[in-house]
Amino acid sequence: MGNTFGTLFRISTWGESHGGGVGVVVDGCPPGLPITVEEIQQELDRRRPGQSDITTPRKEPDTVTVFSGIHDGVTLGTPIAMNVINRDARPSAYDEMRQKFRPSHADFTYQMKYGRRMAEGGGRSSARETIGRVAAGAIARKLLRVGFGVEVIAYVTRIHDISMPACATLPVHADVEATPVRCPHPDTAALMIERIKAVRSAGDSVGGLIRCDIHGLPVGWGAPVFDRLEADLAKAMLSLPATKGFEVGSGFAGTLLRGSEHNDAFVVRDGRVRTSSNNSGGVQGGISNGELLYFSVAFKPTATIMQAQATVDLQGEATELTGRGRHDACVLPRAVPIVESMASLVLIDHALRHQAQNHTFAFTKAGIL
Amino acid sequence: MGNTFGTLFRISTWGESHGGGVGVVVDGCPPGLPITVEEIQQELDRRRPGQSDITTPRKEPDTVTVFSGIHDGVTLGTPIAMNVINRDARPSAYDEMRQKFRPSHADFTYQMKYGRRMAEGGGRSSARETIGRVAAGAIARKLLRVGFGVEVIAYVTRIHDISMPACATLPVHADVEATPVRCPHPDTAALMIERIKAVRSAGDSVGGLIRCDIHGLPVGWGAPVFDRLEADLAKAMLSLPATKGFEVGSGFAGTLLRGSEHNDAFVVRDGRVRTSSNNSGGVQGGISNGELLYFSVAFKPTATIMQAQATVDLQGEATELTGRGRHDACVLPRAVPIVESMASLVLIDHALRHQAQNHTFAFTKAGIL
Amino acid sequence: MGNTFGTLFRISTWGESHGGGVGVVVDGCPPGLPITVEEIQQELDRRRPGQSDITTPRKEPDTVTVFSGIHDGVTLGTPIAMNVINRDARPSAYDEMRQKFRPSHADFTYQMKYGRRMAEGGGRSSARETIGRVAAGAIARKLLRVGFGVEVIAYVTRIHDISMPACATLPVHADVEATPVRCPHPDTAALMIERIKAVRSAGDSVGGLIRCDIHGLPVGWGAPVFDRLEADLAKAMLSLPATKGFEVGSGFAGTLLRGSEHNDAFVVRDGRVRTSSNNSGGVQGGISNGELLYFSVAFKPTATIMQAQATVDLQGEATELTGRGRHDACVLPRAVPIVESMASLVLIDHALRHQAQNHTFAFTKAGIL
Amino acid sequence: MGNTFGTLFRISTWGESHGGGVGVVVDGCPPGLPITVEEIQQELDRRRPGQSDITTPRKEPDTVTVFSGIHDGVTLGTPIAMNVINRDARPSAYDEMRQKFRPSHADFTYQMKYGRRMAEGGGRSSARETIGRVAAGAIARKLLRVGFGVEVIAYVTRIHDISMPACATLPVHADVEATPVRCPHPDTAALMIERIKAVRSAGDSVGGLIRCDIHGLPVGWGAPVFDRLEADLAKAMLSLPATKGFEVGSGFAGTLLRGSEHNDAFVVRDGRVRTSSNNSGGVQGGISNGELLYFSVAFKPTATIMQAQATVDLQGEATELTGRGRHDACVLPRAVPIVESMASLVLIDHALRHQAQNHTFAFTKAGIL
Repeated sequence: MGNTFGTLFRISTWGESHGGGVGVVVDGCPPGLPITVEEIQQELDRRRPGQSDITTPRKEPDTVTVFSGIHDGVTLGTPIAMNVINRDARPSAYDEMRQKFRPSHADFTYQMKYGRRMAEGGGRSSARETIGRVAAGAIARKLLRVGFGVEVIAYVTRIHDISMPACATLPVHADVEATPVRCPHPDTAALMIERIKAVRSAGDSVGGLIRCDIHGLPVGWGAPVFDRLEADLAKAMLSLPATKGFEVGSGFAGTLLRGSEHNDAFVVRDGRVRTSSNNSGGVQGGISNGELLYFSVAFKPTATIMQAQATVDLQGEATELTGRGRHDACVLPRAVPIVESMASLVLIDHALRHQAQNHTFAFTKAGIL
Repeated sequence: MGNTFGTLFRISTWGESHGGGVGVVVDGCPPGLPITVEEIQQELDRRRPGQSDITTPRKEPDTVTVFSGIHDGVTLGTPIAMNVINRDARPSAYDEMRQKFRPSHADFTYQMKYGRRMAEGGGRSSARETIGRVAAGAIARKLLRVGFGVEVIAYVTRIHDISMPACATLPVHADVEATPVRCPHPDTAALMIERIKAVRSAGDSVGGLIRCDIHGLPVGWGAPVFDRLEADLAKAMLSLPATKGFEVGSGFAGTLLRGSEHNDAFVVRDGRVRTSSNNSGGVQGGISNGELLYFSVAFKPTATIMQAQATVDLQGEATELTGRGRHDACVLPRAVPIVESMASLVLIDHALRHQAQNHTFAFTKAGIL
Repeated sequence: MGNTFGTLFRISTWGESHGGGVGVVVDGCPPGLPITVEEIQQELDRRRPGQSDITTPRKEPDTVTVFSGIHDGVTLGTPIAMNVINRDARPSAYDEMRQKFRPSHADFTYQMKYGRRMAEGGGRSSARETIGRVAAGAIARKLLRVGFGVEVIAYVTRIHDISMPACATLPVHADVEATPVRCPHPDTAALMIERIKAVRSAGDSVGGLIRCDIHGLPVGWGAPVFDRLEADLAKAMLSLPATKGFEVGSGFAGTLLRGSEHNDAFVVRDGRVRTSSNNSGGVQGGISNGELLYFSVAFKPTATIMQAQATVDLQGEATELTGRGRHDACVLPRAVPIVESMASLVLIDHALRHQAQNHTFAFTKAGIL
Repeated sequence: MGNTFGTLFRISTWGESHGGGVGVVVDGCPPGLPITVEEIQQELDRRRPGQSDITTPRKEPDTVTVFSGIHDGVTLGTPIAMNVINRDARPSAYDEMRQKFRPSHADFTYQMKYGRRMAEGGGRSSARETIGRVAAGAIARKLLRVGFGVEVIAYVTRIHDISMPACATLPVHADVEATPVRCPHPDTAALMIERIKAVRSAGDSVGGLIRCDIHGLPVGWGAPVFDRLEADLAKAMLSLPATKGFEVGSGFAGTLLRGSEHNDAFVVRDGRVRTSSNNSGGVQGGISNGELLYFSVAFKPTATIMQAQATVDLQGEATELTGRGRHDACVLPRAVPIVESMASLVLIDHALRHQAQNHTFAFTKAGIL
């Protein structure tokens, strides 16, 4: 029962890498949201394998089918079921992996926890599972935008040791999509692409950082003490394959500052209470303060590499394994829409939770207060 | 409804900094666990203000009362309610803060979200709330130890820019408790204490890093895809006041390695499948792999400082505020038992979840499989 | 982890009959609701033992203390913790019951499930646990009334075989409180009181029916398919001690009608869509339809009787037990506020859930739809 | 977010009557359970329309496809996604119903709650939604049987005013399936079938009672105080379309007994603690006591009848509506497997919850207790 995420806008994903398909059920989307299958497909296309020459060549159109909950292009308020059929499954490529545990993959832990597993492509532990998250995230994102004026933009800020410089202005969606690596700084993007290709040629892999900006957040979202906005975002990000770290606002670097340097002074700007700096990253006490919310996520280098590695087999004997199958030498370009999806799911859930408890009640209107 | 944490071992904390008290209800502790009030108090004493000359001088004995769920020193399987009464509350010290928002505190966001707040000491957003977490954590920790052989040890690894060197052997509880700063490396601890005192004298504050080691984890805990062990730990840590980041295993630094450097090769050691390195940090695919699980948490410098800061008041007018009241210039020493408590709560919950679904069923025993 | 109830307005009760006390934590009450301790106490007084000569003489003032979440008579939006200390505990009265299982009580099942139990007064299985429900229910009820114009009125309609006749007009609160038996029909009430006294004199006990009317429900509350309004009410009622049945609208009797007799025709009345009859009981498809919601709950005769009964002891030996301690010969008069509390908790939860998902979104306002 | 049921064995159903299909995701089924698609289909066939001459003639094969979570006939421990495509949808039959609200249906409440609805066949409020429940229930039932030795048997005990007499021995599955009306008493079954046909000829409909027996329950399942076994069963049953009442054990009739008549004396039989009568219905204090658990559910007469009825249209104008489309004149025969499915889902959830918290812990084994 760890396959459900969210409280009021709740998703349940299902599916194995090489089984019948993958999908999601979204429960709790409010009625009346205009959304088309094309809008959902568009987000899936950003996550799709084979979208560029720096991603895995696995040929999956990842065409989504919507079975319920949307009628005439508008949500009904009932559960939205979406499926993607697995097409280009090549189980034979995984014969060896049925016997041998791939290092730093979940083969061993799944085998031990469940007593069995679908070995092909990692089965449930495959990143194909995130298709359901992205399909649901597309809906969450649309609702955030049209219902609340909130925009979620993620982008690659570092691949291996190649970092983009600080931006004068925050990137918009088109900046991110301008290059296949999804780094909005073109010169850095070119270097990143070069690095990914070089590493792939060497049969190796690299990781890096993705940053996510949330624009337009109102003051007041977040549910302390446990369901702080940054806590739910941290969980969402660490629930993604290959992630090893999360930081919000000043993050790890902020621990090197003194309080007098780190504190964000309150000021009045354009008639609103704002802060003069934003080390808090848009969240104070777990609640959004109306500034930009930003966070970064660390992705490790892809575990599957095309080099011989020491491992053990199902019988517990030492052996060797060389990666086969079709893989990304770097997952970050395709992870950008996944990060945006998970962030959108967290935010829309908190939007609905806030709305549940902070509506203007009749007793307030009646002047009792 | 963000004040509940956990699925099967579930806690609900309550209380404001200067109200009637703070406390917790633990729902889901199995029956039959021997635990005394003294054992719970011992953990609270490690979190207590005034415990050393580098913590806030607020005089709170933080004496816990157990109202239910434990009888004759053994848990009953029913909810355990625990209260701590607030003693040394000085509301007058907060007169100014009722009017002015403290920078980088949650005063502003609580006021905006709820339309009102208890201003004294931060009310609900005060770190006094964590008393309930530590009381519950003491029970979780005992159950982990005697029921599953799992030991949770946290410690301060960096204060401001003073880091402890890598240890030859992992610290044990006594190493951590040897100094008031809870850094197990004595020489570094001395420097850290000095720094905290210096910063406090300057009316300023500092942050740093706490690392947490989980010893003795069996293979198989964790509930992918969303409730991965590291995802739930990340949420738990980011739900703590003043935290800005979380990393597990190789963390952010691991993103600078190549896959061939980062992967943990499987080997057979002492008849068990182990890994030769541990960049994964004891978790693969969200499930424990039997290695040491370790993670680090970034704490920002304390927001309350004894210097004049620019801010705005309830009327939205620009003003200035100088910290008053009794505060820690560095929260990390007292945060160590809090980190341990939250980690224990996450782990015991997953222990019970694992047990629910992975017990040897009758059909297995009957040889049907 | 079965001690928590509700999704958005969530309560966790705790406490044993003869332990340190009983209480509740309410998580999710919106901020800004005016409520006093006196209002909460008033509901507890209706549930209190010793309130009249037809209830148990156990002398418990059941004085509630509010520890958090309410300040200056207004809710803060933070958890509300409430305790009642056990005063008139007489553990010695239960010496025999530590050894022998009381027939039709939960002594045996608790002992077997948990391996131990607090035998005095039934421990956790005592109806004293409902104190927490009533304290929380008082808040829910106030919020329903001032926030949504919804009124919950329960009353006794049958004791043993003594039924009240159908009312020309539905009873109001004062009608219910007019007699200690809480049957709003005075003549029937007199007969009921007589029956309870006669049965008590005989060392025996009786049960009966409580009906509950929900006035003023708007159209649209309820969350199909599983969290239908009547489903959540059924669970709430069957979670009460001594309940054996639940029916909504036409209930069991309705199964004797044909569809042509049972269907509620839609009509227009006062410019609103209404139904000409109300066999549906105010709910269609799990959603309120704007008519009166009404349901009935069956309570069995009190299990504790002052007669010798066959039973077995902890050693599994056949023995005999005669009831001691102080008990109600009929629980229904005191159960009325408990039924109202549980109904209020269900309804306020659905009010908040409805509000979360059915608020007028910006995209609706913007004319996109 | 009302489309999810269960805590540890959790299902999410989706789908509209005349949309792309209906289905379910099961999250939390333990790994290693042998189950075939045929076993699941078998249960769906018992629920299928057109299975006999007393059910609706809608021709739906209701063929299930399993997309994930089962491999080589054994569960993987990952989510199980199952779909049924809608085949015999005739939207044109519902043209009139888009405009007019069917009396005692959920058309009006869905329209008001969500602002829109799929009118064809009731959309989400159609009993076709229960397909997902039955598919999931088939798995729950298998796990109960092979994992815990628990058997769930439901049957029709009354149609309209035709009741079956008390049985000498409790019916088994074959007795129930012997006639299309699923009443295990053949003579009564014949009368019931006759009544259903007569009523259908008259364009009318009837309701009745279904009883459910749970055989083989161990002592100790159930999670007081809120998640009592009977409370969760009551919710499960009242979450089904057309249900109006629930009673467990002695139920409503038991309220006419005195305590001395109603109490179940404990006795020792075959070396186990048993009760001499079973008015409790197998549950005491919300926990199973090892006796037969039995309950009854009241189903109202089908709302759709082939007679002209007064109603209003979308414009709020008074009008008339005569039922069209294909409908059951009595839902009870097809509801039997649905009741069994929901009961199975409740029980398996409690089995896993019990297992989570009441496993023999290491500290017990180690003799600490």
